[in-house]
Amino acid sequence: MRLLIVGFGFIGRELVKALRDKMSFLRSIDRDFKVVGIVDSKGYLYNGKGIDIDDLNKITRLSEHRDYKLGGTALDLLGQNLCDIMVEATPTNIKDGEPGLTHIRLALSRGIHVITPNKGPLVLAFRELMNLAERNECALLYEGAVAGAIPVFSLVRECLQGDKIVRLSGILNGTTNYILSRMFFEEISFEIALKEAQEKGIAERDPSYDIDGIDAACKLVILANALMGREARLNDVRIVGIRGITQEAISLAKRANYAIKLIGTIDRGLEVAPKLVPINHPICVHGTLNAIHIETDLAREITLVGYGAGKETISAILNDLITVLRKRGMSKFSSPKIV
Amino acid sequence: MRLLIVGFGFIGRELVKALRDKMSFLRSIDRDFKVVGIVDSKGYLYNGKGIDIDDLNKITRLSEHRDYKLGGTALDLLGQNLCDIMVEATPTNIKDGEPGLTHIRLALSRGIHVITPNKGPLVLAFRELMNLAERNECALLYEGAVAGAIPVFSLVRECLQGDKIVRLSGILNGTTNYILSRMFFEEISFEIALKEAQEKGIAERDPSYDIDGIDAACKLVILANALMGREARLNDVRIVGIRGITQEAISLAKRANYAIKLIGTIDRGLEVAPKLVPINHPICVHGTLNAIHIETDLAREITLVGYGAGKETISAILNDLITVLRKRGMSKFSSPKIV
Repeated sequence: MRLLIVGFGFIGRELVKALRDKMSFLRSIDRDFKVVGIVDSKGYLYNGKGIDIDDLNKITRLSEHRDYKLGGTALDLLGQNLCDIMVEATPTNIKDGEPGLTHIRLALSRGIHVITPNKGPLVLAFRELMNLAERNECALLYEGAVAGAIPVFSLVRECLQGDKIVRLSGILNGTTNYILSRMFFEEISFEIALKEAQEKGIAERDPSYDIDGIDAACKLVILANALMGREARLNDVRIVGIRGITQEAISLAKRANYAIKLIGTIDRGLEVAPKLVPINHPICVHGTLNAIHIETDLAREITLVGYGAGKETISAILNDLITVLRKRGMSKFSSPKIV
Repeated sequence: MRLLIVGFGFIGRELVKALRDKMSFLRSIDRDFKVVGIVDSKGYLYNGKGIDIDDLNKITRLSEHRDYKLGGTALDLLGQNLCDIMVEATPTNIKDGEPGLTHIRLALSRGIHVITPNKGPLVLAFRELMNLAERNECALLYEGAVAGAIPVFSLVRECLQGDKIVRLSGILNGTTNYILSRMFFEEISFEIALKEAQEKGIAERDPSYDIDGIDAACKLVILANALMGREARLNDVRIVGIRGITQEAISLAKRANYAIKLIGTIDRGLEVAPKLVPINHPICVHGTLNAIHIETDLAREITLVGYGAGKETISAILNDLITVLRKRGMSKFSSPKIV
């Protein structure tokens, strides 16, 4: 199969490195697997015989490559039956989902399998895109879009096939978990913990998307729609961020063996809010770790812990890719199951 | 497909209940799915048209059923091409694996898919049985054999397809974790915690299999062979149990923010031993919970937490069953992958 990578930021680059390291394994699954195109924000590389990805390590920008086509776009390549799978890894935009939403719509409508860690299109148009994938008999997989390396969607799809999910909660944002963990262990104020997170590159200069709970709420919407058959939108989530959490509150909680964590919950409704969590509960993980706690009818409780962002996300994208190469993950999984 | 259930103890009964509750879902995957036989230690029920499993709730013993054949055995049924899948749920026997080992060998040699939560045959003959499954193009799935409801095998098989596992550690025995947790939280002695566990039915009257680390070691052997391509045997595991753990040791550890846990580790070698674990580490779970911490090249660290025994195990058995009904989990997964 022929892969097109759209977006060549941090994730695109890390993906190319992993593909290089795992190429012989990938070819053992699909001997014709190759990367035919890579698109960045200003142009693309395309080679129908397969791009030599070893070459790409020698350059820092795609535009330094001799075959770079300045001004070319993903839409040019998607329109011409030049690829079978697209990894859409442009930056998340939760306002209108662009440019990812247009890329994904076009790819699916042409029967191209889509793998994306991009939350924007999924938050805004989950059901529309899943229906489009089903109609065109191709896969839309998005393991990397929620909780990074934690394989929550494939776990439910492949490892809890007989279980009915009745409730889900989780720590879905590593930045806020880092800040709350520092406040808990070092007994520092919110302001100092935030500043430290910004200095370490864990928090953005404008941290509001994370600390006001928007990022966690986006992930919660995707989880609810994908795993529990909801028709949720971002507006449906009751959101409280962590700006109001004082060091005093955390210390008080700690003395009673609780931590304060920003928890996303899917129950009757959807909510992201700071919660008291017993320190010996499996969901009570610290630092930049994420955790997802799934309650089901049979297994009762399963908790998954892992890194929610960073290059560990490549694990999820690669798993989606192998799922497509093995011709799994097709449209029969696009609708929520009825167990 | 036609299912034969061998063993009608706690797991067999709970499985029948779950099959009854989920029958319409199972028939949506395979409209010909039916339970054709159930074997207990003294005889069997067999009906080629499918046993009415609603009937079974009215009786406490299989022998009360009007069609019960006293003296019939699993071998009678396996020898006659009467079923396509066997769930082998006889009691674990790590001395010689019987009667499970003979049942599984016969089933696989006849191309019957096998699903088993029975550790004995897997500890003693893992590679032999996987090879037998591969030669006969049928599945041997055993999700329930290790850490009960925690879907560790299917997670690695389906959700970490591109990851290479480099190290694994875990709390693999709920009884010892319950005892150590009570000693940690209630500051009681080992003897009192053990007695309490026995009164609650969490520990056996002869608790040595659990508290001397044998049960955890068996699970470790299966994990090593299944997930990391080892050729390990029980003798290869360095085993230290929890009899020597004093309340004083636990209190000292606690003051330094550590708990003492019985940890199984697969690194260069295999080991089960009490270890100091930071209380804020994801693996540090309490009560009867189990936890498995997987270290890989891409995702770096994934921790799975859930119930390691009891009726939650039915989640794992049912997932294996659905995997077979969907014609997945076949022999291509019987050999460890090379990523």
